[in-house]
Amino acid sequence: MVVSVIGHGRVGTHLQKALRQAGHDVVWLSGRDFTPDEVRGEVVIIAVRDDAIADVSRHIGNTTALVAHTSGSKPLSTIEQKRRGVFYPMQTFSKEREVDFKKIPLFLESYTDMPLLCQLAESISNNVRELDSENRRKLHLAAVFACNFTNHCYALASQITEEAGVDFSALLPLIDETAQKVHEMSPIEAQTGPAVRMDMSVIERHESMLSGKAKDIYHLISESIYDTLRSKEN
Amino acid sequence: MVVSVIGHGRVGTHLQKALRQAGHDVVWLSGRDFTPDEVRGEVVIIAVRDDAIADVSRHIGNTTALVAHTSGSKPLSTIEQKRRGVFYPMQTFSKEREVDFKKIPLFLESYTDMPLLCQLAESISNNVRELDSENRRKLHLAAVFACNFTNHCYALASQITEEAGVDFSALLPLIDETAQKVHEMSPIEAQTGPAVRMDMSVIERHESMLSGKAKDIYHLISESIYDTLRSKEN
Repeated sequence: MVVSVIGHGRVGTHLQKALRQAGHDVVWLSGRDFTPDEVRGEVVIIAVRDDAIADVSRHIGNTTALVAHTSGSKPLSTIEQKRRGVFYPMQTFSKEREVDFKKIPLFLESYTDMPLLCQLAESISNNVRELDSENRRKLHLAAVFACNFTNHCYALASQITEEAGVDFSALLPLIDETAQKVHEMSPIEAQTGPAVRMDMSVIERHESMLSGKAKDIYHLISESIYDTLRSKEN
Repeated sequence: MVVSVIGHGRVGTHLQKALRQAGHDVVWLSGRDFTPDEVRGEVVIIAVRDDAIADVSRHIGNTTALVAHTSGSKPLSTIEQKRRGVFYPMQTFSKEREVDFKKIPLFLESYTDMPLLCQLAESISNNVRELDSENRRKLHLAAVFACNFTNHCYALASQITEEAGVDFSALLPLIDETAQKVHEMSPIEAQTGPAVRMDMSVIERHESMLSGKAKDIYHLISESIYDTLRSKEN
């Protein structure tokens, strides 16, 4: 299939590579300075930051191709073309790291072209599903908790290990096991730590060792853990 | 070596098993109803909840053995015997899951018996280090962020995927990649998401989809991500 990918960011970079590896003929364009005549193919994928999607769609203008964006939080209607879709890969991409696209969940939406979008998606991933804009927006929010906020917990932990004179790598077996556990049990069943039993002697000592937002985060998440487990018991 | 392990909880269960597998002669006792004459061996490990360590140590009474506890947050002085130590395995244990003790970081402390404690630790783990009570307490706090709070982020994400009608397992590739990334780069370098660039259109839409403590956590962690990245830039 001939596919244009617009966007030189992390998603665009990994996506065009996966499409090429799957044997597609890929035209890879920059979101900032492409011209409409460069855009070719049956499918055009706009992989630019959320706020730029509408502008890029408008700049493409009239086309017979299916035009899709890759955003978790923007609705299908952000694309102005009639043949439109969403092609949302739920993963955290880094320039430096290879990812196995086959395992990345791809969430698709289109009223006009689901079979075509699905065919393209299944050529690069074994994990393809249909999801509407409202539920995709929820899923993107869940991904912020599971990835971005989790990573910030790692960052706060790394600041504390540094203060303790211990290398951050000492935490990696714990971080890995925490991620592995939820493959086998729900996060609510997997929950451990002082907040589970509201062990105030530990919690107060920990809070006394923190300051600023880290202290507020400790307090709030501890309360939320306790509330979550109580509400599941009742 | 003959070793007594006191405590039938998760740490005691996994520890006595690892010690047996390493060829030690293990006496495994319940923290609630052991009698001092049952306690045998060169080393006695108290693997009970933090608040019960002092009572168990007192109940053991006079002994020529080295007595050690397994707590990250309690100081060495919680043990009343003169030959005392700390044997802190930094990992999250579940009854249901096997763990590879060889990879678990073990943090040791003892003024009287470091060689003996070290010999025992190295018989079950390849990751043994010495750490004093103050820095161990910090490390335990870091572990709360990296494990307990991370898991709560998964739990909040699971509530949202449920609302979106998507199975929690769809998040597992993202959760795994988030954990894997910090093997190769620091959590601060790995940070992605709307809070990195304070993308207010996404942040406000996300907050409008949340309520209660989850909403407060979203707001506070987003601010903390932004602050953390700014302070590293300056």
